[in-house]
Amino acid sequence: MIVIMSSRAGAREIEAVVNRLKGAGFEVHVSRGAEQTVLGVVGEDTPFADLALEAMPGVEKVVPVLPPYKLASRSYKSENTVIRVGNVEIGGRAVHVMAGPCAVESREQVMACAGLVKSAGASILRGGAFKPRTSPYSFQGLEKEGLLYLAEARSATGLPVVTEALDISTLPLVAEYADIIQIGARNMQNFPLLKEAASLGKPILLKRSPAATVEEWLMAAEYILAGGNGQVILCERGIRTFNGQTRYTLDLSAVPVVKSLSHLPVVVDPSHATGKWRYVLPMARAAVAAGADGLLVEVHPDPARALCDGQQALCPKAFLAMMEDVKKVAGAVGREC
Amino acid sequence: MIVIMSSRAGAREIEAVVNRLKGAGFEVHVSRGAEQTVLGVVGEDTPFADLALEAMPGVEKVVPVLPPYKLASRSYKSENTVIRVGNVEIGGRAVHVMAGPCAVESREQVMACAGLVKSAGASILRGGAFKPRTSPYSFQGLEKEGLLYLAEARSATGLPVVTEALDISTLPLVAEYADIIQIGARNMQNFPLLKEAASLGKPILLKRSPAATVEEWLMAAEYILAGGNGQVILCERGIRTFNGQTRYTLDLSAVPVVKSLSHLPVVVDPSHATGKWRYVLPMARAAVAAGADGLLVEVHPDPARALCDGQQALCPKAFLAMMEDVKKVAGAVGREC
Amino acid sequence: MIVIMSSRAGAREIEAVVNRLKGAGFEVHVSRGAEQTVLGVVGEDTPFADLALEAMPGVEKVVPVLPPYKLASRSYKSENTVIRVGNVEIGGRAVHVMAGPCAVESREQVMACAGLVKSAGASILRGGAFKPRTSPYSFQGLEKEGLLYLAEARSATGLPVVTEALDISTLPLVAEYADIIQIGARNMQNFPLLKEAASLGKPILLKRSPAATVEEWLMAAEYILAGGNGQVILCERGIRTFNGQTRYTLDLSAVPVVKSLSHLPVVVDPSHATGKWRYVLPMARAAVAAGADGLLVEVHPDPARALCDGQQALCPKAFLAMMEDVKKVAGAVGREC
Amino acid sequence: MIVIMSSRAGAREIEAVVNRLKGAGFEVHVSRGAEQTVLGVVGEDTPFADLALEAMPGVEKVVPVLPPYKLASRSYKSENTVIRVGNVEIGGRAVHVMAGPCAVESREQVMACAGLVKSAGASILRGGAFKPRTSPYSFQGLEKEGLLYLAEARSATGLPVVTEALDISTLPLVAEYADIIQIGARNMQNFPLLKEAASLGKPILLKRSPAATVEEWLMAAEYILAGGNGQVILCERGIRTFNGQTRYTLDLSAVPVVKSLSHLPVVVDPSHATGKWRYVLPMARAAVAAGADGLLVEVHPDPARALCDGQQALCPKAFLAMMEDVKKVAGAVGREC
Repeated sequence: MIVIMSSRAGAREIEAVVNRLKGAGFEVHVSRGAEQTVLGVVGEDTPFADLALEAMPGVEKVVPVLPPYKLASRSYKSENTVIRVGNVEIGGRAVHVMAGPCAVESREQVMACAGLVKSAGASILRGGAFKPRTSPYSFQGLEKEGLLYLAEARSATGLPVVTEALDISTLPLVAEYADIIQIGARNMQNFPLLKEAASLGKPILLKRSPAATVEEWLMAAEYILAGGNGQVILCERGIRTFNGQTRYTLDLSAVPVVKSLSHLPVVVDPSHATGKWRYVLPMARAAVAAGADGLLVEVHPDPARALCDGQQALCPKAFLAMMEDVKKVAGAVGREC
Repeated sequence: MIVIMSSRAGAREIEAVVNRLKGAGFEVHVSRGAEQTVLGVVGEDTPFADLALEAMPGVEKVVPVLPPYKLASRSYKSENTVIRVGNVEIGGRAVHVMAGPCAVESREQVMACAGLVKSAGASILRGGAFKPRTSPYSFQGLEKEGLLYLAEARSATGLPVVTEALDISTLPLVAEYADIIQIGARNMQNFPLLKEAASLGKPILLKRSPAATVEEWLMAAEYILAGGNGQVILCERGIRTFNGQTRYTLDLSAVPVVKSLSHLPVVVDPSHATGKWRYVLPMARAAVAAGADGLLVEVHPDPARALCDGQQALCPKAFLAMMEDVKKVAGAVGREC
Repeated sequence: MIVIMSSRAGAREIEAVVNRLKGAGFEVHVSRGAEQTVLGVVGEDTPFADLALEAMPGVEKVVPVLPPYKLASRSYKSENTVIRVGNVEIGGRAVHVMAGPCAVESREQVMACAGLVKSAGASILRGGAFKPRTSPYSFQGLEKEGLLYLAEARSATGLPVVTEALDISTLPLVAEYADIIQIGARNMQNFPLLKEAASLGKPILLKRSPAATVEEWLMAAEYILAGGNGQVILCERGIRTFNGQTRYTLDLSAVPVVKSLSHLPVVVDPSHATGKWRYVLPMARAAVAAGADGLLVEVHPDPARALCDGQQALCPKAFLAMMEDVKKVAGAVGREC
Repeated sequence: MIVIMSSRAGAREIEAVVNRLKGAGFEVHVSRGAEQTVLGVVGEDTPFADLALEAMPGVEKVVPVLPPYKLASRSYKSENTVIRVGNVEIGGRAVHVMAGPCAVESREQVMACAGLVKSAGASILRGGAFKPRTSPYSFQGLEKEGLLYLAEARSATGLPVVTEALDISTLPLVAEYADIIQIGARNMQNFPLLKEAASLGKPILLKRSPAATVEEWLMAAEYILAGGNGQVILCERGIRTFNGQTRYTLDLSAVPVVKSLSHLPVVVDPSHATGKWRYVLPMARAAVAAGADGLLVEVHPDPARALCDGQQALCPKAFLAMMEDVKKVAGAVGREC
């Protein structure tokens, strides 16, 4: 950590800061410039945020040198984390497509979807039984009934299931049926849910909050890793910007950024990011070209009859086209799908 | 609602949309332009988002006319909602200051803070017992012990207490001690928590998520109102922008915007928004001048020893200065404090 | 256009709006709902922004149906615009790479760069002679001398040259040497420059301002098209967001969005968007996979000695690797490079 | 400046960086941590951005200690800059209101406006003769004719005039008539225009670009100061965010931030920021409470007939109400108006 002292800071103020740092077990190197003094602080074991240095008189700014996450960092673990779910390895050479409806609406819909996405080459089935909806008046999901249909679709197709847990109270139920537990974007910093989900030992798909920096996202992953569960799959699904033509702005540069900062696998959800099925296909291709380890895509047998987000779901024909394109792009970047 | 058909939409596609709308009980007015057809749709009782219109062939865009929230809207209830907490009326003529430490750290700290803020003119005591921290390695709060200290401070000073509930599992405990239950910015769209908190019948302070539009914020309030609890206090605490000099960007225009769209009271938290105590004072004044019904401010007896966010806490002297200024500005805009 | 009247608007206010619209030559369809009246307005020939409708009493909102740009829109011209520069066709089947140094620094540097990028497969040489620098104390470019070196490099390699014009006063000089005139992101809404550049009849590369919506970007293109110059190449180079790990956030979804709204070609600049050479390679691949017609990439023989933005320039070896990857991805999406 | 070396940097790489820094005349302090080496660099006279350090092998990040602007900084000049225009002192104890129409439309309109704003207490007349319009089809201003009307209004009322220069070619004409030359938000980084405007020796009102950080804004001011012109008035007019209820998001925290970083006066434009006249009044009050030295406000005798931005102009009655409120708030914060 580096502490930049204000140009108005006096010797006594500098000394007070140095003393607090030494008292907390740090080694301190003092660089006195013509205008300002800078402290190089070595040995960051205690979380320095807890030292309240920036509230001390004379301190202008504290600049961290090491990232605040540890277990999630590339320097802690240099090789890529590969997560096994059934026969599927996420984070390895293959790019995996997780596809299915936004919301589970009926037995027929899920079974049709599961068959369809499997035959097109998807390796994981997605579908929401508990739905976080912006409006209290919108369809909120089939809940347990939805989980049963997902389980049945898994039996029929052999596809592992990823589905969202909204809350601690329904988490055990979701965990009973899910192969991968999804933590939604709105819950990325729901810390009690992160801790509890970590403790179940199942792989967790952690969506990025639309307001989260990459660092905050990795800190949320750190909650799970620090809870003893190393199976975290990160999912980029668009950030909030001034852009009005898409629902969110898909931040594909987050893929190589996360790959350089962390060892965890990253998948991309072009459906929620764009909010329009028309843009899902090019952004799915781009995500794979940027280095994503997988895709999370919404597919519906009849989007114009969907109970949730129909405008962003691919119809069966469009999904088939997407899979063909994605396979070609995966090949072009040295991967397979 | 208005449905704008694509310029490429044919007669059959237009008819299909009209039929679906009529089937759902809407009245439809068709305007045929030289380039595009536009449907004026009257009678928005079912949530039209569930109609999946944008997924129908030929539909270019759906433009809502009425806001998606109802109970929270000014057109549903034209007079201002006033919320009573003890002797305090939030949303009335007086501007109320809710002040205290970010986190409850010890009995001494809370008692000192409570006495201090009361004597300076604050009318509500704030303080966190359960803390949502970005890092799993940071201080997470005193939990139940913290609630007991808050209760003791309330007995000693007569100040009602606002404190945060992080999760359904600890909500009953928080509700037992809190006069106002705070839902934090990261939980603004934690829908199970909103529903459960609504059911307890206590006033709720609902912080705006840093990524939330005003509409999404009011939709979160709608969850509480639709749950039968009309006592919602909205709290603006900064939105996420590219700005680096403050932690978030305080969106003070949200105050008059919310006042025009909704009947609910709005308070402003300049401490979290700016992240630097130096800027809290001018932004507190500005919030009151913009029409805020109150302020949520962090105060610490010794900020440089705070366990949480010390750099944004006012020391006792700065808080006294703020209160004096805020009283003058409140007077200048026809209110009192 | 649709005019949504406030629920409080009276008959007289509605009539006044209808009369003004009819007076301006529009046809008006009135839809009276239980709560609000909506006017469907047909025949948008005069720019309705000039009608000041939103300032009329009783008007809540004006919703345009047609986009504000005309000549730039896909509905005005349905086939893709292809722009010829020497032997190069931008917007056709081939993906074109425009590469070279950020700033022209010396004759040697440009000649070395030009030879290098040509042999690696680039089809256009880029390089700045007039540099818009955030700091007045930074290197501002070689100006005319730089243009001469670019011309010499063109003669030696046969590569057409794209270079930036900063201002009307130096525009004629730049136009004398450039095959494509670049309008930088900071000048996207420098309307006098757009008008003047349009009049020169040369192809124009129009960079998106980091704060511009897609609509504003297309409106800037409209200035050029309305000036009688149809040869506009749009260039996405990152938008401003809260993201700190890259300089800007590359908005790749803008590629398919622009392709659907407009007939103009779109290229992508991953160098300025990411600000770090390490991320240029994956984002270049992703841009091509998303459907970009070309790339604008910074290359420097020795980035660690660059006078401008060295941290985002590819060294020769990295550029060669990029070109190989980009060719494969172009092939995978049915194009060539 | 601080240079943070990567944890993978070897001794040779560290040495190369140290040597380059020493070669450029800097003093270097090396702090070796367990994981990373950090260099404290003292003596920042050459702009370090030109050293391309971040492109050197082994360098992870360069953290500036001093701000990149010098003449604009508070540490260069500790007392507030006060700018005299006629009898008006901007940056002193008084808060000044600059009011008038968005665009000069006719002699009658300007004369009526000037009389009105003067009698209500405004001290400067604003009005655009050259208008930067998003659409090429919108009214572009009366140009020279507009300047003549402004001059006539000045003679009649004694109010100094602030009006915008769009380009170098029309700058001399504007400067002939203007008492303060406005550089618009879209031109904040039009560096040739900044340099040329600086050379004229007249006060300059520099609007913040909606995508500019405070640092970039101060760097734009630095261009003018470095050109020998110390009379810069900064103007906050809203930044671009995801917020849809106002045109931009007024960043009032920029007022105290700029006041702490710089000695230059700051005024606020609530009209362009909100885009809706209804919100101008509360935001004008808030701006003064936050510490603004003045306001820039649009007033129109008949907003519903305005040729430009009528929806954000105050009618005469609303402007009078605003002036009354603003005077009270100015008094409450120890200023006058």
